[in-house]
Amino acid sequence: MIMSDIPEKETPLAKYKLLEKYSQFIDYNNNTIFSSALFTEHVDFDLSYFPLKHLGYKIIVASTMNILAMNATPTQVRINMALSNRFAEEAIDELMSGIMFCCSKFKIDLMGLDFKPSVLGLTIATSMLGEVAPEQKVGISGAKENELICVTGDLGSAYTGLILLEREKKVFQADPTQQPDFIGVDYLLERYLKPEPPAWGLRDVRAQNFAPLQPTSMINLTDGLATGLIHLCNASKLGCTIFEEKLPIDILTFDKLKELGIVATTIALNGGEDYELLFTIKQEDFEKIKEIKEISVIGYMTPESSGRHIITNDNRQFELKAQGF
Amino acid sequence: MIMSDIPEKETPLAKYKLLEKYSQFIDYNNNTIFSSALFTEHVDFDLSYFPLKHLGYKIIVASTMNILAMNATPTQVRINMALSNRFAEEAIDELMSGIMFCCSKFKIDLMGLDFKPSVLGLTIATSMLGEVAPEQKVGISGAKENELICVTGDLGSAYTGLILLEREKKVFQADPTQQPDFIGVDYLLERYLKPEPPAWGLRDVRAQNFAPLQPTSMINLTDGLATGLIHLCNASKLGCTIFEEKLPIDILTFDKLKELGIVATTIALNGGEDYELLFTIKQEDFEKIKEIKEISVIGYMTPESSGRHIITNDNRQFELKAQGF
Repeated sequence: MIMSDIPEKETPLAKYKLLEKYSQFIDYNNNTIFSSALFTEHVDFDLSYFPLKHLGYKIIVASTMNILAMNATPTQVRINMALSNRFAEEAIDELMSGIMFCCSKFKIDLMGLDFKPSVLGLTIATSMLGEVAPEQKVGISGAKENELICVTGDLGSAYTGLILLEREKKVFQADPTQQPDFIGVDYLLERYLKPEPPAWGLRDVRAQNFAPLQPTSMINLTDGLATGLIHLCNASKLGCTIFEEKLPIDILTFDKLKELGIVATTIALNGGEDYELLFTIKQEDFEKIKEIKEISVIGYMTPESSGRHIITNDNRQFELKAQGF
Repeated sequence: MIMSDIPEKETPLAKYKLLEKYSQFIDYNNNTIFSSALFTEHVDFDLSYFPLKHLGYKIIVASTMNILAMNATPTQVRINMALSNRFAEEAIDELMSGIMFCCSKFKIDLMGLDFKPSVLGLTIATSMLGEVAPEQKVGISGAKENELICVTGDLGSAYTGLILLEREKKVFQADPTQQPDFIGVDYLLERYLKPEPPAWGLRDVRAQNFAPLQPTSMINLTDGLATGLIHLCNASKLGCTIFEEKLPIDILTFDKLKELGIVATTIALNGGEDYELLFTIKQEDFEKIKEIKEISVIGYMTPESSGRHIITNDNRQFELKAQGF
């Protein structure tokens, strides 16, 4: 079944419950576009298969997501790292080269850097600032009934890449003479190991194509589509209906998951790891996006009383569920 | 001897060498007052004796230091935490209550909060923004020859508190029936477990007393006085002379260290953990600070060719040394 087959992830605490508890103290309304993220070894990345240069690149991309989700452009980043002495200088160079390549590519200034010792593996904290004209700023609330729900890129491919990497790691651990079997899955591995920010957020692309389009609400999809949808609905006190057939699932992702006995829709809804954006637009703005292949319309917002649902390909309706709700 | 008796600390990598290597990529000249810090269990704090509420408070104070060192006022903070499921909700409440109490006390808005799972103990990352009028902004460079070198507060008391806590931990580990012997050392423990930001940086105090005084260069002292002095000298291409007899060492700190067979000056120079500021002022500004008991003049800046020295109480001269240089 689609909704009961949520992949197991490490969530030793009810993150969203805690956030709700302390949300009264958080000043969400401030105008500064200010974001931060924390990446820890063994939870966010496994150095047995994650090349350090790619990790550096991915960490910067990941850090841009909350800024892009406010329709802003990332401008500055600070990095604090804790690392143990098993990291040789060459390893730090690899990591830094990925970080600096990504910063340079997206014109993000590296504003600060600090290293400290660690007895607990590699930890990287980033904080990032961004810029947006006040009238273009988008928050997680602001959607209205009947507005269209859109996503950028395709869903589930990065998580599928992670499944393959973890599988080959287990094979290798059992028999170190085995070579990994990654033939034909480059795209999936790359989506996990070296994600690109959604085209929607890149300043050059936006300047050329997207500037006239103003989303009414937006959120990043790194915690999964179902989580993102529930957040958007909660924030705007609305329901939603999305359609399984509209979910942008890459054909390679679909086939590989089928081979593994996993329903692709489950991964698209609950896998996470997608560095993509989920947003709502006014119906009359459909004309502006219908030709853009990186954007898919997957459903529409409904009254809160209608609930949050997905309509499957065989026309059955399921309630959307996500961890922490 | 003073200079050879540097306390052992965990520094598995040459932090300052690395920072120098990558400094060409860092945009130090940007006007945004933007700071970040990372705190990891077993390196920055030991939960066997650090109360979580105090830890929360200290983390916010620690995060203000780089902002205060630019003569700015901290305004906003974001917090990212990774914690394992050994933390009960009550423990998180303790930690958060310290964080929120400190934010509220110093009028710092909590702008964001995120929790994630950890398999590696507690890690807390903070990022902080601050405000300063451009003409009042102070950097680490800008000192001139013959300017006076000042420090806030007293030096070495926090590190002495840490030595006592570590000693009692070892006693307890060897014999759990032993009660810790902390009689008469409250001040030292408090300086380590619940430091206050230097009065110099508090916005109300500054508004009343210090606003007319403009330091020419400034740095925070958390890495130790010797490290701070060498940084200031390097940044302004100068030397310095400081005087052992001028170092503000609290009498309790001095006595306790003597009891432990440790030279107080060593701890004042190289212990670190002091949440105080080191700054230079023009000679003619001496009048403005001479009545302020929280500020001590400890020496003066010299030409670069004169080197960086401390003159001891018995009138001998030693070169200042610090880890990483």
